[in-house]
Amino acid sequence: MRILIVGGKGTIGQAVVEKLKDAHELIIAGRTSGDVQVDLTSVDSIEAMFKKVGHVDAIVNASGAAKFQLVEEMTPEDNLVAVQSKLLGQINLALIGQKYLRHDGSITLTTGIMKDDPIPGGASAAMANGGVAAFVKSAAIDFTHGIRINCVSPNVLVESYDNYQDSFKGFVPVPAERVAMAYVKSVEGKQTGQEYQVY
Amino acid sequence: MRILIVGGKGTIGQAVVEKLKDAHELIIAGRTSGDVQVDLTSVDSIEAMFKKVGHVDAIVNASGAAKFQLVEEMTPEDNLVAVQSKLLGQINLALIGQKYLRHDGSITLTTGIMKDDPIPGGASAAMANGGVAAFVKSAAIDFTHGIRINCVSPNVLVESYDNYQDSFKGFVPVPAERVAMAYVKSVEGKQTGQEYQVY
Repeated sequence: MRILIVGGKGTIGQAVVEKLKDAHELIIAGRTSGDVQVDLTSVDSIEAMFKKVGHVDAIVNASGAAKFQLVEEMTPEDNLVAVQSKLLGQINLALIGQKYLRHDGSITLTTGIMKDDPIPGGASAAMANGGVAAFVKSAAIDFTHGIRINCVSPNVLVESYDNYQDSFKGFVPVPAERVAMAYVKSVEGKQTGQEYQVY
Repeated sequence: MRILIVGGKGTIGQAVVEKLKDAHELIIAGRTSGDVQVDLTSVDSIEAMFKKVGHVDAIVNASGAAKFQLVEEMTPEDNLVAVQSKLLGQINLALIGQKYLRHDGSITLTTGIMKDDPIPGGASAAMANGGVAAFVKSAAIDFTHGIRINCVSPNVLVESYDNYQDSFKGFVPVPAERVAMAYVKSVEGKQTGQEYQVY
């Protein structure tokens, strides 16, 4: 398969690349690194990326930003970071990318455990995660030509737990390599409308 | 209690008003009707409404728009209707309204069954519903001073089933009066971070 992996240089992205690279042709997209550049907060940038990349069999996204802030200090503007990146960045990748997917192709997005198991200051990220997960479940019934869509919801990663442990007290981190297996299931399997929770 | 009900003239809003009016002081907000006007898609309009209304014990929203469209025909712009109204309209109501809530006050938002039980063309609305539900669950752990936040997820209503039955094949509609009970539970009860599913 020809697979576009957005965020392929991140911790999860690299683990996904490791799993898929031997059997597939991978195109790595990133904001500043990779084979092609994309800013997911810009519809024009997503369009431009697909014009360069052309048709693919699978689109994977392992990127997305959000601002972590307690709700009592959060402004509507603070919340827009997650809206533009983690939420609309991913949904626009799906809406635009569907036109570049071959029959029986797939889209795999990324959510996160905070929506199911809240952490202090995580409400904006949780909102984006919940929005993406619900979109995926609903969009799956609309697609034709065998197009599938899933998302992966990782726990905090072993690889980044040192930086985040104060926010994730009592969470049991998972290795990126295990999270990557869920992306493989989405890309190489046949399921659709799923959220693979790697908790 | 002094309760602000946004969308108080809608089908659900009227049923909520009916349940709460005898025991509480209600302020009805709407785009064009009610005691005070508000456009939830505008942060300035929400700010202006709260400046007029002042402090309250509970904020209830029973409004929110989304564009229904099959994913294969949906553009990023189509999706913005739900983002601006059903998603950010409600979250901004909470973020701005929290400053006008008395101690032990509550916020009650509205999601919908489409995020759990998808219908064709419902992915944009589902996204907004999923985002609001996850925000509510997460925001609840951040609030202090007894502030609570919940949402109500109604099935399609008996009162509007004639208009929507083609999209909701096999759904068993619920009366608005029963949905309204969930808002009463949120406002007069003590729970927080809940999504009351009236399916």
